[in-house]
Amino acid sequence: MKAYSEMTREELTAAHAQAAADFEAMKAKGLQLDMSRGKPGAEQLDLVIDLQSVLKTNEDCFDGKLDCRNYGTPMGIPSCRQLWADILGVKVEQVMVAGNASLNLMYDTVAKAYTHGMLHSEKPWCKLDKIKWICPVPGYDRHFFICETFGIEMIPVAMDDNGPDMDAVEELVKDPAVKGMWCVPKYSNPSGCIYSQEVVERIAALKPAAPDFLLMWDNAYCIHEFDGDFVPFPDILSLCEKHGNPDMVVEFASTSKVTLPGAGVACMATSEANMKRIMKLMSFQTIGYDKMNQLRHVRFLKDKEHTLALMKQHAGVLSPKFHAVLDGLERELAPLGIASWSHPKGGYFISLDVMEGTAKRTVALCKEAGVVMTPAGNPFPYGKDPKDSNIRIAPSLPPKAELEAAVEVLCVCAKLAALEKLLAL
Amino acid sequence: MKAYSEMTREELTAAHAQAAADFEAMKAKGLQLDMSRGKPGAEQLDLVIDLQSVLKTNEDCFDGKLDCRNYGTPMGIPSCRQLWADILGVKVEQVMVAGNASLNLMYDTVAKAYTHGMLHSEKPWCKLDKIKWICPVPGYDRHFFICETFGIEMIPVAMDDNGPDMDAVEELVKDPAVKGMWCVPKYSNPSGCIYSQEVVERIAALKPAAPDFLLMWDNAYCIHEFDGDFVPFPDILSLCEKHGNPDMVVEFASTSKVTLPGAGVACMATSEANMKRIMKLMSFQTIGYDKMNQLRHVRFLKDKEHTLALMKQHAGVLSPKFHAVLDGLERELAPLGIASWSHPKGGYFISLDVMEGTAKRTVALCKEAGVVMTPAGNPFPYGKDPKDSNIRIAPSLPPKAELEAAVEVLCVCAKLAALEKLLAL
Repeated sequence: MKAYSEMTREELTAAHAQAAADFEAMKAKGLQLDMSRGKPGAEQLDLVIDLQSVLKTNEDCFDGKLDCRNYGTPMGIPSCRQLWADILGVKVEQVMVAGNASLNLMYDTVAKAYTHGMLHSEKPWCKLDKIKWICPVPGYDRHFFICETFGIEMIPVAMDDNGPDMDAVEELVKDPAVKGMWCVPKYSNPSGCIYSQEVVERIAALKPAAPDFLLMWDNAYCIHEFDGDFVPFPDILSLCEKHGNPDMVVEFASTSKVTLPGAGVACMATSEANMKRIMKLMSFQTIGYDKMNQLRHVRFLKDKEHTLALMKQHAGVLSPKFHAVLDGLERELAPLGIASWSHPKGGYFISLDVMEGTAKRTVALCKEAGVVMTPAGNPFPYGKDPKDSNIRIAPSLPPKAELEAAVEVLCVCAKLAALEKLLAL
Repeated sequence: MKAYSEMTREELTAAHAQAAADFEAMKAKGLQLDMSRGKPGAEQLDLVIDLQSVLKTNEDCFDGKLDCRNYGTPMGIPSCRQLWADILGVKVEQVMVAGNASLNLMYDTVAKAYTHGMLHSEKPWCKLDKIKWICPVPGYDRHFFICETFGIEMIPVAMDDNGPDMDAVEELVKDPAVKGMWCVPKYSNPSGCIYSQEVVERIAALKPAAPDFLLMWDNAYCIHEFDGDFVPFPDILSLCEKHGNPDMVVEFASTSKVTLPGAGVACMATSEANMKRIMKLMSFQTIGYDKMNQLRHVRFLKDKEHTLALMKQHAGVLSPKFHAVLDGLERELAPLGIASWSHPKGGYFISLDVMEGTAKRTVALCKEAGVVMTPAGNPFPYGKDPKDSNIRIAPSLPPKAELEAAVEVLCVCAKLAALEKLLAL
């Protein structure tokens, strides 16, 4: 194979004819494949079935002296808070454990800033004319949707393998209308990069003009290695405190991809001062979260070490899937010089950059051939990828055989879209 | 015993000496009793332990073809929506099932009206100068806290045994700033009254000036009889539709007092048009609620009939507790003519009216003697009972023997407070 850039028009035309024929052949298979969302596969769900039966007797339902079957304890049960404090490397006083979804906690945090303001806000954000937000790209579409639903203007900032472009971020936070920033510091969605120590320090040391700047630290993949051993990560709360920003950050995590997506336990960690204010505001919203599920999780996961052992089992399922995708991309696309992609060692995604101006077309072609991809542009604010180049690949859900078929389709579609563009068809 | 109103000052002084002595004797016991919140007791929690082990195998985790262990299905699993549709007497299309608390759904509904507006709102409520709300009193403190946290001005409306004073309500809704109303239509918190058919019809037929008037129908005790058989209730959604107000009402319920408080399943029912808008707004907040807990509940509760049979078991625990309180009040306070109270057949509370101007004092005395009551005034907006007369009694949590001791304390404190007032001490 030869890079498209080195091909003559004749060669490109021949390559296009071949790609078009391959595409038709794949369409004819009537595939129904899905690489669109970061959902664990059935094999992973099966790993945790014992979670459902750890609580059997009435006596089982106590966390120490606390009867988890009744109202109250809005910060969550002590043992579950301790488990999360151990995993995140924060103090137990800084952690609350909640319901089934960290997204819900993130939404609620921004919603409360909007309706009531944060600890250091002059007024609720809904009373402000303009709110801006720093969005490292490519990023997580659901983060961006939260900004969008509250009318927050999103400012994209480029990412590289070390995390967001900190020169740009440091410049942006000089604007007092810039009220916050999304971060997925470990195995970032979708590139899978880990923010470097230097980047994390610079984030913690930011001097935002807004006194109520809100660093949303979504540590969704904090223990989610699929290749290699657990990679320790810095405690952002301590770092922010060290740099004089104790109340700037709120950290989030969950067991959605440790136990069950949608039936796990989410947590939030922040300074005690922040926590006090947030819990006061939350006291109007809930009497408490599902403590039985928290207890179920503690009994099943036991401690950090045991949880990491479970993550190794997940890795055993996920690693072959990721490598099937990476191998497919390497084999089909690398020689053609029309695409680049990330090589993550954890998390749930691969970030693929196809030839500029062909991402939407590639995803549309995939759909035609029965392969559902995340919509092109989704990893960008307002769904707009200025280069129309990025495609998020989620390899976790399909069985490996389906995944191989899906990657084959994806590569043919990326080729076809590139050739259409090069030939100006 | 003689009514205080018929006593001479000398007799009142003697009664006061006796009450004061009784009070000291009770204080000396060092009691630690709690009748403050509507929490089920341990015996009730024990009734539902099998809920914890209905899901054992991976195959158990499917609701038909739906794998409840993965993301998605924000409206909730079909079988659980059907169960709630049957209980509430609404169409399954009108019901969504959610997480562990109807309070959370109620807060979120008001919060979304505040941040985004309702279906027929001209603008989000946070952009309005003034929002007013109708609050039947005595009512549920947590409802009022939701209004308070969003700066909504609460207007109390009196309740009698048939529900809210509808003449007053019909007058109030002529004001376009009046945006909503709280209702607990069956076994109202705290009086335990059931809204009469006429009151419910008049509510459904309201013609509010506000196009986005929001009737918050908290059917918390819809199947919660402790004396006698299940009392059918009207479908408020159909009634509102019949009267040309299809989108005016949102109904809420939960299994908090059917299975486990804080670990049950909450639901919300409203018109399909409302539901579509609310679910769109909720899609930014959550990917879905805990479907495993929904499924667990369906497997355990089975259907409406089986659920009603479980409620009979709860009644078997609750009825003796309520009667212990009612008997104590009857015996100790009725002859004195200083108090009146409700005689509910379901729900979780008794509404006690002590002599005007003595509720706060009575509750303070109770506390001194080791009995925690709901703070006086709590069942009123801003915690202000204009008559300082109402005390909410929650008989469900303490074991019967403790409850008898607590009621004895309460009666002595009510007497002592009344006598202090009558003697102007």
